[in-house]
Amino acid sequence: MKYTVAIGPSSFAEEDVAPRCLLEAAGITIKDNPFGRRLVESEIMNHLQGCEGLIAGLEPLNRTVLAAASPRLKAIARVGIGVANVDFKAAAEFNVKVSSTPEGPIEAVAEMTVAALLALNRRLIPANEALHQGKWKKEIGLGLPGARVLLIGYGRIGRRTGALLKAFGAQLLVCDPFIEAESLKHGERLVSLEEGLVEADVISIHAAGENCILGAEEFAKMKPGVTLLNSARGNLVEEQALVKALEDGIVRQVWFDALWKEPYTGLLTKYPQALLTPHIATYTKQCRLDMETAAVRNLLRDLGC
Amino acid sequence: MKYTVAIGPSSFAEEDVAPRCLLEAAGITIKDNPFGRRLVESEIMNHLQGCEGLIAGLEPLNRTVLAAASPRLKAIARVGIGVANVDFKAAAEFNVKVSSTPEGPIEAVAEMTVAALLALNRRLIPANEALHQGKWKKEIGLGLPGARVLLIGYGRIGRRTGALLKAFGAQLLVCDPFIEAESLKHGERLVSLEEGLVEADVISIHAAGENCILGAEEFAKMKPGVTLLNSARGNLVEEQALVKALEDGIVRQVWFDALWKEPYTGLLTKYPQALLTPHIATYTKQCRLDMETAAVRNLLRDLGC
Repeated sequence: MKYTVAIGPSSFAEEDVAPRCLLEAAGITIKDNPFGRRLVESEIMNHLQGCEGLIAGLEPLNRTVLAAASPRLKAIARVGIGVANVDFKAAAEFNVKVSSTPEGPIEAVAEMTVAALLALNRRLIPANEALHQGKWKKEIGLGLPGARVLLIGYGRIGRRTGALLKAFGAQLLVCDPFIEAESLKHGERLVSLEEGLVEADVISIHAAGENCILGAEEFAKMKPGVTLLNSARGNLVEEQALVKALEDGIVRQVWFDALWKEPYTGLLTKYPQALLTPHIATYTKQCRLDMETAAVRNLLRDLGC
Repeated sequence: MKYTVAIGPSSFAEEDVAPRCLLEAAGITIKDNPFGRRLVESEIMNHLQGCEGLIAGLEPLNRTVLAAASPRLKAIARVGIGVANVDFKAAAEFNVKVSSTPEGPIEAVAEMTVAALLALNRRLIPANEALHQGKWKKEIGLGLPGARVLLIGYGRIGRRTGALLKAFGAQLLVCDPFIEAESLKHGERLVSLEEGLVEADVISIHAAGENCILGAEEFAKMKPGVTLLNSARGNLVEEQALVKALEDGIVRQVWFDALWKEPYTGLLTKYPQALLTPHIATYTKQCRLDMETAAVRNLLRDLGC
C-alpha cells in the first residue's frame, strides 16, 4: 500500500537528507510543512488530510486534530523527547500509534550544559567582547576541578552531564527522589534538595515535570555566588525569584536554554550575567540526524512498512 | 637567617592569601611589586635590591639584572611554565637556583581549550547576543561525537586536552615528532602533519617553540570548514595566512588565547568567527593558587628554609 506522511518540524532533513531518503526508499509520499514554522491547530488539521503518518514536532495533536485525521492517520512519530503536545487518550481511542526518540537528545543536551558552564566560568563572552573592541581585559575565572555540582534530576541527561563534569574533576551531588544511594557507582553523593542547595557551587536542572523546584525559599538557602544552569524547563524556576537572586549576588551567573515563554524577551535579557540560548541544546547536526532517523524508523515500523 | 623575597607578578596572592601566608609562616619578609604591572629591566633591578629570593613572573631576568642582584640573590621561583625570560647561563654563574611550575597550568589550559571549542561549535556567542537583543535565532551547531580532532603537540597539555575531548566522543589524531605510535594507549592515531590537516574537523595547537607551524601552504591542505584552536603561541600560526583562510571559508572559526603581540589589537578582532581571549587560559582561581603555592614551596626549598 502507498502511504502519505506529513512532516511537522520545519527543519526536518534540512541539514542532512538521509531521513527523507529513508522515507522515499520505503515508497512514502512526503507532504512538507508549507509554512516553515510550527503549525497551529487549524493548520495541522489541514496538513494531516489524506495522511497515514506524521513526523511530529511540537504542533498541537489534541482530540480535535486526531478526530479529524481519523481513521486514516495510523502513526505519529515525534522527533524529540517531549510528547506533552499529544493527547494520548484520544490517540489510543482513534488507534493512532505514538512514538518518540528519548535517546536522541542525551548527548547534545549534556554537551551543551557543559559548554554553557565552561563559557560562564572562564569568562569567554566578556573577554571576547572586550578584545573585539580593542580592550585587553584579563579576568580571573573558575575551574571545574573540585567544584561541587548539584544535579537536580539524575535521569539519562543528568547522568551523562555528570559523567562529563566528572571528567573535568568536579564533585557530584545528586538530588533525585527516584534514585537510591546504592545505585550511584561513580562517587556521586545523594543529597536532599536542602543539603544540595547549601553546598553547591553549581546547580544544574535535569528534572522532568512542570512544577517549580527553585523559588524564593530555595534561593535563600543557596551558597552566595552559585552558578545556575537550566536546560530542562523554564517553569522549574521562579523567574522573579531568580532575578532577585541575581540582583542580590546569590546567583553569580546563569544559563537558560528552555525559557518560560518562547520566543523569550523577558527580564533575564537585561542581565549580562545571564547566558541565554534559544532552546538549541539539541541543535547539533549529529543530534538532529540521529533523532530524525530514529523517528522515521519508528514511523515505518508503526505503519508496517 | 631572615630572608627577603621580592614578588614579581602583580596578581600574586590576589585571589587567595594562602601562598603569602606560607612565605610569612617561614619568617620571610615580603617586598611587593610596587607598580601593579609587569616590571621592566630598571624596575626589577631596583626591586631585587636586598633580596635573597624572587617569586617571578615574566619580568626580564637577564645577565645585567642577575649581576646586579648577585651575590645576595639565591633563588628564583617562576609562577608558571615558561622561563624564556631567564638567562640560565648567567643564573648558573651567579649561583642562582631557578625553578618553575610546569604541572600548574595543564588542567586549566586543557579546560579552556575545550571551553572555547564547545562555545564555538554550539554557537553560544551569537545566540546569546541575539537573545539579549530580543531576537530568537536558532542556529544549528556541531557536536563533538565523532568529530576528528588533530592535536599538534602531544605533551602534558595536549594529552589532557585529548582526554577531555575523548570523554565527549571525539576521535583523536596526534601529530608530534617526539611520540612513538606504541606509546598511544587511548585510541589516538599518530599522523603526519599533512595527513592530519587533510582529515581534521578541528585542529588544536599544543606545541612548544616559536617557529611557524601553520602558514599558507598548510591552510591550503585543510578540510574546508575546519575549526582552529591556539592556546600555545601566536607565532605558531601565520596571521595573514589565517585571515585569508577565514575569508575563504577554509577556517570556519578560530580561538586564539596566545596572540602575536599582546595586548592584541590586530586583524582577528574584525572577524566575528574569531573567539579571542586575553591570554587567560591559566586564569582560574584553582590554577593560580596551585601555581603560586608550588612556586613558594620551590623557593623555600631553594633558600633552604
